[in-house]
Amino acid sequence: MTKTNEGRFFEDYAVGQVIRHAVPRTVKMGERALYHALYPARHALYSSDQFAQACGLPFSPLDDMIAFHVIFGKTVPDVSLNAVANLGYAEGRWVTPVWPGDTLRSESEVIGLKQNSNGKTGVVWVRTRGLNQHDELVMEYVRWVMVRKRDADAAAPEAVVPELKTVLSIDDLAIPRGLDFTDYDFELAGEPHRWGDYAIGEKIDHVDGVTIEEAEHMMATRLWQNTAKVHFDATFRPDGQRLIYGGHVISMARALSFNGLANAQMIVGLNGGAHANPCFSGTTVRAWSEVLDKAETSAPGVGAVRLRLVATSAGGSMELKGEDGKYLSHVLLDLDYWALMPV
Amino acid sequence: MTKTNEGRFFEDYAVGQVIRHAVPRTVKMGERALYHALYPARHALYSSDQFAQACGLPFSPLDDMIAFHVIFGKTVPDVSLNAVANLGYAEGRWVTPVWPGDTLRSESEVIGLKQNSNGKTGVVWVRTRGLNQHDELVMEYVRWVMVRKRDADAAAPEAVVPELKTVLSIDDLAIPRGLDFTDYDFELAGEPHRWGDYAIGEKIDHVDGVTIEEAEHMMATRLWQNTAKVHFDATFRPDGQRLIYGGHVISMARALSFNGLANAQMIVGLNGGAHANPCFSGTTVRAWSEVLDKAETSAPGVGAVRLRLVATSAGGSMELKGEDGKYLSHVLLDLDYWALMPV
Amino acid sequence: MTKTNEGRFFEDYAVGQVIRHAVPRTVKMGERALYHALYPARHALYSSDQFAQACGLPFSPLDDMIAFHVIFGKTVPDVSLNAVANLGYAEGRWVTPVWPGDTLRSESEVIGLKQNSNGKTGVVWVRTRGLNQHDELVMEYVRWVMVRKRDADAAAPEAVVPELKTVLSIDDLAIPRGLDFTDYDFELAGEPHRWGDYAIGEKIDHVDGVTIEEAEHMMATRLWQNTAKVHFDATFRPDGQRLIYGGHVISMARALSFNGLANAQMIVGLNGGAHANPCFSGTTVRAWSEVLDKAETSAPGVGAVRLRLVATSAGGSMELKGEDGKYLSHVLLDLDYWALMPV
Repeated sequence: MTKTNEGRFFEDYAVGQVIRHAVPRTVKMGERALYHALYPARHALYSSDQFAQACGLPFSPLDDMIAFHVIFGKTVPDVSLNAVANLGYAEGRWVTPVWPGDTLRSESEVIGLKQNSNGKTGVVWVRTRGLNQHDELVMEYVRWVMVRKRDADAAAPEAVVPELKTVLSIDDLAIPRGLDFTDYDFELAGEPHRWGDYAIGEKIDHVDGVTIEEAEHMMATRLWQNTAKVHFDATFRPDGQRLIYGGHVISMARALSFNGLANAQMIVGLNGGAHANPCFSGTTVRAWSEVLDKAETSAPGVGAVRLRLVATSAGGSMELKGEDGKYLSHVLLDLDYWALMPV
Repeated sequence: MTKTNEGRFFEDYAVGQVIRHAVPRTVKMGERALYHALYPARHALYSSDQFAQACGLPFSPLDDMIAFHVIFGKTVPDVSLNAVANLGYAEGRWVTPVWPGDTLRSESEVIGLKQNSNGKTGVVWVRTRGLNQHDELVMEYVRWVMVRKRDADAAAPEAVVPELKTVLSIDDLAIPRGLDFTDYDFELAGEPHRWGDYAIGEKIDHVDGVTIEEAEHMMATRLWQNTAKVHFDATFRPDGQRLIYGGHVISMARALSFNGLANAQMIVGLNGGAHANPCFSGTTVRAWSEVLDKAETSAPGVGAVRLRLVATSAGGSMELKGEDGKYLSHVLLDLDYWALMPV
Repeated sequence: MTKTNEGRFFEDYAVGQVIRHAVPRTVKMGERALYHALYPARHALYSSDQFAQACGLPFSPLDDMIAFHVIFGKTVPDVSLNAVANLGYAEGRWVTPVWPGDTLRSESEVIGLKQNSNGKTGVVWVRTRGLNQHDELVMEYVRWVMVRKRDADAAAPEAVVPELKTVLSIDDLAIPRGLDFTDYDFELAGEPHRWGDYAIGEKIDHVDGVTIEEAEHMMATRLWQNTAKVHFDATFRPDGQRLIYGGHVISMARALSFNGLANAQMIVGLNGGAHANPCFSGTTVRAWSEVLDKAETSAPGVGAVRLRLVATSAGGSMELKGEDGKYLSHVLLDLDYWALMPV
């Protein structure tokens, strides 16, 4: 019985510890095809080799969120199997595109620990790095989770709370080598709106909605080799529902945001994010975005736009929080990211 | 709010106008694998590189209906987002096979316009062409749809109703370069019946049935980047049902027709088609075919057969229409196409 | 009506007869991606080209069970369309790995026939061989099924019951050329347990569970071009349920067994197996294993372990059979196989 992985408890982490996560994964066009079957993804750079080449890339990379999901999925058995809650993300950076045939692996460094006052749980901060077969950094992000203690009587470790940027600056972002939007084809991309057409504070209702099915979120979550029981096993929760992987909601909302943000081609930075409410099968997911900031970049024709992406269940308003400062019940996701767009 | 696509209304079309549709798409073996997971497709030419090579092709192309779906999907945001009804197809021709790695894009020319007498809607005829990355014509077809007017008081355009062939002649059909059925392996293909064994007027009940699931039709429809809300959003229709993309029913019926038509290998012409009744999740789809015509071709060992393919919901008879000339309620699809078969 | 395949009846088989099954199939990385979306498969050798190369292989082969499913699927129209029951497997051997781009086909030799005393059915034994495009043996196995007679009055054939090994010996197993576990990376593979850590008689509860959906088992079963109506057509059984393909349960249980058997990398022998009870959508599948035997091999660093893999529906105990010697109702699968593991 002891050969199975029971996951790590709060006492099993130490600041400075590096965890090399298991099961490297070679990803190719099959993963791309499935991504496009599971989400209404239409950003042209991730759809067409010729479009990507016209933008200075050797060919079309795998979607930025595929990189995130694969790298994240590997951390689950070591980081979040006993997690009570996924508390936040910060300092997410996409550094090297993922090309078909690349093999991804992940490692996480523990950068913070703080026992909660109840003595039963604690918060663990990890910085996760995804590497390809050339040991190049593909992406990295910080995540913090609340983890159960194995033994409530175990002594608390010294509290270390990392200082994290609330927003990445434009200099923190990596622009893919060669990216050039000078000859960008707005007609093929699907919308005429360029970087200059977006104003800080502008909100965009993405209009479309998708009603989520069990088979779809499970296929997605499995494809990223995410092993959290709660997504797959209907007997795990007392209510018999399978909790949908938060990343499924991110990808769904990002894909829906094509309608109004078709030219926000590549995600390069993740400033923060909250899974505001759990999502279950049968929910119709909608999305809206808010332009939070804009910046110029050194790449030809390439601007950066900082966006808030909000996923909601159908029928909800574009209000985020109530008077008590808490997310309203229809808000599923509140994500803060940087994307690249033709100027 | 104005950055999202509201779709075109009847007034937005003019005869002669060419619409270059957005989001080109590179398709490879991942799309093939998904096609074979979503439909019980077994035609050997689209299943095995070696079988295709024995038929004179360089390797196995992507299924003919993948070409149709990808090319069709791109037209939806420009042609049918505000469509009230999909009225018909004509003059569909598969010209160049799609090879793994090809990138497809679509453009449509408006070839007809006619306002309806109610003044609220009109009929738009478009000829859609799918092109690959070499600018070769992959396939083309005419489709006509009923589209809402934005403003009921807008003046009616001059009515232009195109003359369309009700049936393509054998000379209209393109045979893939190199196709040769002289050494065709009937045993590996799955059935002994050759072109000469089929009689005009013969009907074939394809026996098998598939009960359709929400997750499957949505994955298929998304894979072709078809954005019509009614297929994905359960809150869109008052009855809470998601309408199944008509192309899903076509592919399902075509795949079911293997049982009795295993040697009708390649679809090369679409004479016409009607989505006779809407299809919803939970329906068990069955199919039957009728041999409408036969023709010889100039390619070695290759004959052409014109088929009516009818999809029905389970329990229905092989009757098509009632005394009032309308399709019976169990008929989902009535398609008229040309396929190539070994003589 | 007579052009469709009605399947073979007991009278249609003769000992010595070789049936060449239809529809060869080229499999690539799309099938791999779908396999990993449909099952929580994490064995590193089938996930990463680099991991496979570190184990002496040219790159990562397609999962061993993909080979089985594709080869098995082709036999269904000729062997089990009129089968009343799938009675057993024996002498299954994986001989040559399947590489992306390989084309698989199947042929079966009838090696046994025995009419049942009721005169209405009989047992047919076939040895099925799967071959690749180089005519190399990919895998083979013996299966026996109970098949209906077309005509109850037809004379019984001479009974021939083949002698089959109940267990393959280590010398019967093929080790993939080049396989070398000397530099095996246990950390990347996901668990520290090596061959020497497993004791004969040891039982492992694999802990995790997956609740099965209709869309998922149908997509899997279609992907292998398995045509048995009962898996797809909800109108086929009086109770309106679709029976889940037994191979879906095998792959699910095998993938779940990663948790505790992460280093049982490759399946090389199938000693026997029983689909103890039917499985339907909504069932939460769990798995446990028992170490039945161990053996050394001649390949560097490679040991073999004989395992019993049991799939159960959630809530069931680790008991297999009742006092009457029959499988308990919660047991779905009882499989006996050999796998390769680092010593």
